[in-house]
Amino acid sequence: MVITTRPGVADQQIDALRERLERCGMRTLAVRRGSRVVVGCLDAPGAAEDSGDWQQDVNIESIMAWTRPYRLASRDASPGGAHDTTPIRIGSARDAVVGGNGIVVIAGPCSVEGLEQLRATAHGVRNAGATALRGGALKPRTSPYAFQGLGAEGLELLSLVRQETGLPVVTEVLDTRQVDLVAEHADVLQVGARNMQNYALLAELGRIGRPVLLKRGFAATITELLFAAEHIMTRGNHDVILCERGVRTFESATRFTLDISAIPVLKRETHLPVIVDPSHAAGDAELVPALAWAAIAAGADGLIVEVHARPEQSRSDREQQLSLPAFSAMMRGATTFAAAAGRRLARGAPAIVEPPLYVSRQAALRRRPVAS
Amino acid sequence: MVITTRPGVADQQIDALRERLERCGMRTLAVRRGSRVVVGCLDAPGAAEDSGDWQQDVNIESIMAWTRPYRLASRDASPGGAHDTTPIRIGSARDAVVGGNGIVVIAGPCSVEGLEQLRATAHGVRNAGATALRGGALKPRTSPYAFQGLGAEGLELLSLVRQETGLPVVTEVLDTRQVDLVAEHADVLQVGARNMQNYALLAELGRIGRPVLLKRGFAATITELLFAAEHIMTRGNHDVILCERGVRTFESATRFTLDISAIPVLKRETHLPVIVDPSHAAGDAELVPALAWAAIAAGADGLIVEVHARPEQSRSDREQQLSLPAFSAMMRGATTFAAAAGRRLARGAPAIVEPPLYVSRQAALRRRPVAS
Amino acid sequence: MVITTRPGVADQQIDALRERLERCGMRTLAVRRGSRVVVGCLDAPGAAEDSGDWQQDVNIESIMAWTRPYRLASRDASPGGAHDTTPIRIGSARDAVVGGNGIVVIAGPCSVEGLEQLRATAHGVRNAGATALRGGALKPRTSPYAFQGLGAEGLELLSLVRQETGLPVVTEVLDTRQVDLVAEHADVLQVGARNMQNYALLAELGRIGRPVLLKRGFAATITELLFAAEHIMTRGNHDVILCERGVRTFESATRFTLDISAIPVLKRETHLPVIVDPSHAAGDAELVPALAWAAIAAGADGLIVEVHARPEQSRSDREQQLSLPAFSAMMRGATTFAAAAGRRLARGAPAIVEPPLYVSRQAALRRRPVAS
Amino acid sequence: MVITTRPGVADQQIDALRERLERCGMRTLAVRRGSRVVVGCLDAPGAAEDSGDWQQDVNIESIMAWTRPYRLASRDASPGGAHDTTPIRIGSARDAVVGGNGIVVIAGPCSVEGLEQLRATAHGVRNAGATALRGGALKPRTSPYAFQGLGAEGLELLSLVRQETGLPVVTEVLDTRQVDLVAEHADVLQVGARNMQNYALLAELGRIGRPVLLKRGFAATITELLFAAEHIMTRGNHDVILCERGVRTFESATRFTLDISAIPVLKRETHLPVIVDPSHAAGDAELVPALAWAAIAAGADGLIVEVHARPEQSRSDREQQLSLPAFSAMMRGATTFAAAAGRRLARGAPAIVEPPLYVSRQAALRRRPVAS
Repeated sequence: MVITTRPGVADQQIDALRERLERCGMRTLAVRRGSRVVVGCLDAPGAAEDSGDWQQDVNIESIMAWTRPYRLASRDASPGGAHDTTPIRIGSARDAVVGGNGIVVIAGPCSVEGLEQLRATAHGVRNAGATALRGGALKPRTSPYAFQGLGAEGLELLSLVRQETGLPVVTEVLDTRQVDLVAEHADVLQVGARNMQNYALLAELGRIGRPVLLKRGFAATITELLFAAEHIMTRGNHDVILCERGVRTFESATRFTLDISAIPVLKRETHLPVIVDPSHAAGDAELVPALAWAAIAAGADGLIVEVHARPEQSRSDREQQLSLPAFSAMMRGATTFAAAAGRRLARGAPAIVEPPLYVSRQAALRRRPVAS
Repeated sequence: MVITTRPGVADQQIDALRERLERCGMRTLAVRRGSRVVVGCLDAPGAAEDSGDWQQDVNIESIMAWTRPYRLASRDASPGGAHDTTPIRIGSARDAVVGGNGIVVIAGPCSVEGLEQLRATAHGVRNAGATALRGGALKPRTSPYAFQGLGAEGLELLSLVRQETGLPVVTEVLDTRQVDLVAEHADVLQVGARNMQNYALLAELGRIGRPVLLKRGFAATITELLFAAEHIMTRGNHDVILCERGVRTFESATRFTLDISAIPVLKRETHLPVIVDPSHAAGDAELVPALAWAAIAAGADGLIVEVHARPEQSRSDREQQLSLPAFSAMMRGATTFAAAAGRRLARGAPAIVEPPLYVSRQAALRRRPVAS
Repeated sequence: MVITTRPGVADQQIDALRERLERCGMRTLAVRRGSRVVVGCLDAPGAAEDSGDWQQDVNIESIMAWTRPYRLASRDASPGGAHDTTPIRIGSARDAVVGGNGIVVIAGPCSVEGLEQLRATAHGVRNAGATALRGGALKPRTSPYAFQGLGAEGLELLSLVRQETGLPVVTEVLDTRQVDLVAEHADVLQVGARNMQNYALLAELGRIGRPVLLKRGFAATITELLFAAEHIMTRGNHDVILCERGVRTFESATRFTLDISAIPVLKRETHLPVIVDPSHAAGDAELVPALAWAAIAAGADGLIVEVHARPEQSRSDREQQLSLPAFSAMMRGATTFAAAAGRRLARGAPAIVEPPLYVSRQAALRRRPVAS
Repeated sequence: MVITTRPGVADQQIDALRERLERCGMRTLAVRRGSRVVVGCLDAPGAAEDSGDWQQDVNIESIMAWTRPYRLASRDASPGGAHDTTPIRIGSARDAVVGGNGIVVIAGPCSVEGLEQLRATAHGVRNAGATALRGGALKPRTSPYAFQGLGAEGLELLSLVRQETGLPVVTEVLDTRQVDLVAEHADVLQVGARNMQNYALLAELGRIGRPVLLKRGFAATITELLFAAEHIMTRGNHDVILCERGVRTFESATRFTLDISAIPVLKRETHLPVIVDPSHAAGDAELVPALAWAAIAAGADGLIVEVHARPEQSRSDREQQLSLPAFSAMMRGATTFAAAAGRRLARGAPAIVEPPLYVSRQAALRRRPVAS
């Protein structure tokens, strides 16, 4: 069951409520939504979940049964209306929030290849209005003989360019043992499509104090994507951004088939924000703008796009890197389509930002008696 | 090879040119594009296709080799620029043209169920701004025990409502033997997804003087869709409208997976107009508006949408029929997104229209010494 | 509901029973199974289907409700046990029966290309033990510029070689208007994968007195395949052979992905015989034997295999034509795997056979008061 | 390039050869195949790979260029003929070898649920002729609320039952940090379909002295499966067993679609042994025998099958667990089909075996100057 408290109930009272619920054999998780707190009761032995026993509690506004198999990720856990999205902050700039009115654009190269390449690309996308910087330091590559990324050095470069540009950094993590290292440098940790059901990694990311960008596996159903988010959320990290990036089909004109319908389906099923990666879906820079605009029209909260200052020199996925002028053109269209959707593009980064300060796991857990 | 004439060459001279080409063993087809005529040379024995022999001809502006396996459907056969689309007129109203600046919306019930149902729906969609009326009289149904449509009676009803509303009629044809009957009542003949590779039917449609709306098979590649169009075009009917309506994948949250990328890919490959059917793709009325808007943002030339005056009474595909108010809301959004795309919605039908006059095959062929 | 009569009930009594059922608003179809007759009641208005009213009838052994959405094709309509298959005779030779203990092998070229090619291939496959000859005269080709088959001439060649070799002929029909022509020459009419949901064609085939080989569409579910068979059967032709030939997936190492599981699933769902086409599934002659043997091990009643006396000269699907020696090697393995499955390969054709005599539709209908 | 030495060249000389190759900038890996050693040269800078420089070496029999993008996994790296498979030992019993003439059957429950369940199932499958025991202790589950396995306790139970029955143990590993723990208890470490492209895990498994059972991801191409094997092999562990377990398609009659064609394709591409998991492919115990037999007929080197002493009490994937009698019946059929394929079932475990002794990574590496 899902309990929603009355507005303004104190943390202390919520702790007391959770204690009582847990004494009855339930595992509880609490998420603050505006002035209310939603307490989700998970794994309850059947008998304990008799809502009758709890309806007398003056702090409780409503009690509902779960209506979907995933719970914390589902709309059941969100007291807002059907189109209410939980905003997730990804940087210190005022508009660096995924899931608000502003549509966030995360842009940058497939791989971090060197300081000059990263710097040129980052300044370029920042000037064109990007809200955040993407770039792979640890690359999952089909072939072990392909370029595997710069590793820790790439993470350092991302940190450096982050400081210069003020752009929050989104980068992929591949291994449970790297989570802390990546979190020291990144504002958002990305789980790639191939790792969407790497449950050990999801569990580890559930214990950190950083948002996670969770890409849909290329043969994962929407339900499985939401369960993957649930794997992270049940460990205490509620800041999960979902990303549609194309599914595998028989069609070979594009690298993958962008499942545009996933956007309205996810908007119905979950309160988590949804972004789209048109670059991997298409595998072809020429097709990226049309897909990016379609994503905005379909209701996406953001985009993650591959851009390279010199696409022809890219060391990975060359064909799908937008040049800086092509990215600018895409952004102009995006501005218009965002307006048509009653939204706007999130404003880019201000001139100066503080360096990222990684919150260790222990501190993160301490800071989250009630997950925000 | 593809020959483009200089502007203003007379029909006579084109006939003479084609005669000479055919004497060399080539089959030719001519399509007028603005003031020029494009002569496509098909099935040429290797030797005959030596372009050197023809470059002296003063009426010829350029000679090009085919660069794609499909020919008349390909951009090779279109002298316009990369974004130039061949407009196809689907009714007598001024704006009833697919492939121009105006985005055409074809709306109506899945099946024609009776006069009252069709009339109520047709007037409803007309008031909301639809350009044309859809409705199935001959229905291809998975089960032989499901409602199979009203047949000839349904076609009569479509004709009747067409006269009342001025909306051109789009309806499906299933059988080579019905082509003439359907063409007597319909302004556009639709080939359903299940018949996209029914080559006997395509050949028959290649011989009539009516536009064809060709739906992509749900496991057909984009290349196969273009070859299906080619099957119609090589018989002399160049008025083919392509329709993306979702492909079959493992995802079961939607009925099919709309392949939104097919729009920009088709725009690159072909000069034929491209429309989208969000209703069959989604199989769920609630998702239709988001997909319709995405299609416009991705560059579609039109939409074909299922609308029913009383969706709950629909005899087929009930869940995917939009109600009239939902359709109006979708149209308001479509207007805004069309503007963002630098286009507009095509204006609906004027008050009064002439009845459709079917052009028999013989007349059609006579009328098309140069296909327009 | 499905009524099974007691053994030995006379045709007269069955006619009387059907008349009474139809007076109650039901449409009935009768199929003889051994000494019993199964009467399927279709499209009954709810009230009329009260089985209580019929249980008194002394000719009736049992009354059952339909348990599946397809009816005549389903196991519900078969009084035999779960592994009982309805045998379908495809020629006059004693062993030319699909669905009995003997596994039938239909072999021959993709296309009929000429007398010499067909004759050499037919004698070759006959010597290697094939039960029937395949060969396309009317070819459905993706491109209108590819070889479209020899047409009526190809059918004549099939007839001729049929007489010489005694091999029954299996060939494809594409168009409702060709059904009679093809039936004059063929022992079995094949519906290709692209036409599996061409309902006009299925209806026409439901009215002839020839078995139909129905190939699964390459994106059709097993349920849809059974509904396609039902479209034929409800018109009175109960002799439908189902054929699994690969479905479309993301994997490109093979032309299609053979759905081997379809065999045991179909064996559970239907009493119709099931054969497998490994040639189109693989698209690669080298892989065909392994798939053919797997099909036998999985329970298939037969194979349809492409063989060409000179594969390198084939005018269509060259890579997937087995040479005669490769076919012989495949047959040797097939003999062993059939034995392991407790079956045997059906014996090939005897030396001399009568010419095929086409039963016109009217005669066919007259001959089938009770479909056999 | 791939260098094959003459027979009987001493380890010392091979070390010297590799040293010289590496001084030229190549990374080398050596695998013993019978009396020869194959030295694969990876990542060579173009110039260094001039085979002319090496052909003088008296120890070298042949030098070949790589013909496929994956290398150590490819047939290029195997001096045997096209049907030669590299045998991989999975236990101490004489016949516990995957890739020899004996077809290996790995059987056991989806999850280890307790001692009694595991013991009853293990003795049951051993009596029916299984060669090895499977059982999940660490379970990757779509939902975080489903049973996640017994963890370390489950591994202990597997060790215990291994000692009792002599059956080598195959169990899944999910996390880089668990590799040593699992290797202490398991004879073969399984990588599940969801982790096929978890490159961190693959790299870790490349460093241990235990065979790896690598399951194909359910949307992975055959090429990607071979690259995943290559990720393990380039780290030094050459004992990779490939497993086809069904791919995701639109068909919902089965849980996945078994790609039976993958077997002959893999046999052409790689020298690694290939086994099949019919249980996960079908998701339905009733269909498992047909798929298992088809796999043998198609050339598989083994099967991995889910069996439960009391299927109705299974805590995961209940519908796909074979009962012990059903497993015995499947094994009887498997014996016959193996014989038809010119093979036999591998003999089961002898009465008494030594306990598994985990070889630590360092020792493993020391033991493998030339990987065997």
